Amino acid sequence: MKALVYTAPETLDYRDAPDPDPRDDHHLIRIDSVGICGSDMHAYLGHDDRRPAPLILGHEGAGTIVSGPLDGRRVTINPLVTDPQSAASLSGRENLDPGRQIISMPPREGAFAQYVAMPERNLVTVPEGFSLEKAALAEPLAVSWHAARLGLERLHPADERRAHVIGGGAIGVAAALALKAMGVGAVTLAEPNATRAAYLSDACGIAIDNAPATGIPLIIDAVGIAPTRKAASALVAPGGVIAHIGLGDADGGLDIRRITLQEITFLGTYTYTAQDFRDTCAAMFDGRLGPLDWAETRSLAEGARAFDDIRKGRVRAPKIILKP
Amino acid sequence: MKALVYTAPETLDYRDAPDPDPRDDHHLIRIDSVGICGSDMHAYLGHDDRRPAPLILGHEGAGTIVSGPLDGRRVTINPLVTDPQSAASLSGRENLDPGRQIISMPPREGAFAQYVAMPERNLVTVPEGFSLEKAALAEPLAVSWHAARLGLERLHPADERRAHVIGGGAIGVAAALALKAMGVGAVTLAEPNATRAAYLSDACGIAIDNAPATGIPLIIDAVGIAPTRKAASALVAPGGVIAHIGLGDADGGLDIRRITLQEITFLGTYTYTAQDFRDTCAAMFDGRLGPLDWAETRSLAEGARAFDDIRKGRVRAPKIILKP
Repeated sequence: MKALVYTAPETLDYRDAPDPDPRDDHHLIRIDSVGICGSDMHAYLGHDDRRPAPLILGHEGAGTIVSGPLDGRRVTINPLVTDPQSAASLSGRENLDPGRQIISMPPREGAFAQYVAMPERNLVTVPEGFSLEKAALAEPLAVSWHAARLGLERLHPADERRAHVIGGGAIGVAAALALKAMGVGAVTLAEPNATRAAYLSDACGIAIDNAPATGIPLIIDAVGIAPTRKAASALVAPGGVIAHIGLGDADGGLDIRRITLQEITFLGTYTYTAQDFRDTCAAMFDGRLGPLDWAETRSLAEGARAFDDIRKGRVRAPKIILKP
Repeated sequence: MKALVYTAPETLDYRDAPDPDPRDDHHLIRIDSVGICGSDMHAYLGHDDRRPAPLILGHEGAGTIVSGPLDGRRVTINPLVTDPQSAASLSGRENLDPGRQIISMPPREGAFAQYVAMPERNLVTVPEGFSLEKAALAEPLAVSWHAARLGLERLHPADERRAHVIGGGAIGVAAALALKAMGVGAVTLAEPNATRAAYLSDACGIAIDNAPATGIPLIIDAVGIAPTRKAASALVAPGGVIAHIGLGDADGGLDIRRITLQEITFLGTYTYTAQDFRDTCAAMFDGRLGPLDWAETRSLAEGARAFDDIRKGRVRAPKIILKP
């Protein structure tokens, strides 16, 4: 098959790679659409030692099963492969399974390719009439759905359901959409890039606010670097919650004195549970997450160019979907 | 009256001070016993700009009402004075009232004195036969009770009820006792000072462990400096909770990448709600918090010497109670 292979820092090569082997309980899926994630960019820049070259990146895929009894079924892929019998999975927190694997990280190749192989439990059927391009957004939407759910669960019952999202990449946009789908009326989003901010405001109807007033019960930090954590620490209301998704800097930025004196909850959130992924798909399919028309589509063969464009800030849309 | 007045960094003067004025809904209380807190030490060293000299420090007091219709009632004092009609108080979180005051911080003088004046709602009656020296431990016990309660509430239902406390000062000891009172069977405590550790183990029956295995669902950081946060970040189990009480360094130590990837909750906790204070007193009075025989008693007139001894690490007991 053809694949976009990460061969060295800042180098992606569109070339032949071995077909995946759909052994055991795995199904072969022909990829129709696959999104580029910030973590792919991080690996591409050589900053993720969990993803050494050569490797096929990409974990936001949707496509069609082309093997076995489910042949022809259109699916979107939960890329997190976990042991259903682990204690974490049995408690409904598959994402905390210490043996968790994700496609695009060894030993599993990613979805920037014509095919991947996945267990059936990782596949969600896409209904007729719902495009696979939009279905490929399930994974980033699920990341944000999970963070929004945990953040709202941690709010005190007396706290106003009001939130601010830091960062207008796909995760931030998805967080704003998930919060709205969960009934949070007042959601603002901060995005310093003026072109991106204008696009989100005009095309997605997201309320941009780069200088909100303090005292916000729920902050979702969808960037995860010291300056965004500093902003989150200052903006969150006493007794409030900061849900932290990003994997930027490992430390710094948090005002721990304020967090302590004002009893703020700082909550790390990573990926999603299997139920969150299914719930996100249901919300996506029935329209609760909006028209999902904020991705740009390009050819996988020209994936290297897309990475370069994202890196140089030349992409207005918060997501690029590649088509093998 | 006589009071131990903080007059300049590292200087405490036992001298005459104006009697408090029990106006409005306040009662005059003759202090029998008052504990020295780490925050008093912090102020004494000149490190707390919320407590400028000259000031009477001390907020862990118990004594006897000597005015009005409650004359003669033995009470322990909740030092946090809040507006019962604030939104925070109405939601049961008096400690988040933005107008909160605490005795020992302007505009309120503290309890290192013969008398203080307090509203009746801040007073808990001490039963016959329960000493006022032990009753003066209510405040630090309540701080830890609150942190233990919040920490346990934030654990996932599937998580083992097992905890580790960092720091063997009064707050750490009280956290270990509160956790046990709340039914947590396995509680360990880390205390690097060997003399203190031996005392806690031998006299208080606390399981000391300065090198516990990782994977602990609940960590209570009762120190609050970068090295203890670093330890907490490493020790806590995936999906677990760090309850952070201390007000040492404002930042540093947290492994935010691990907190994110392992979905750890970092929870700031400050003082207690009014209900937590009452619940702590009830647990103290009925013996659930143990014999409470781990404080050392000295004269308030010699308070300056006690501060100096604590500072120089010469005190084996986790608490000194001063007697006016």
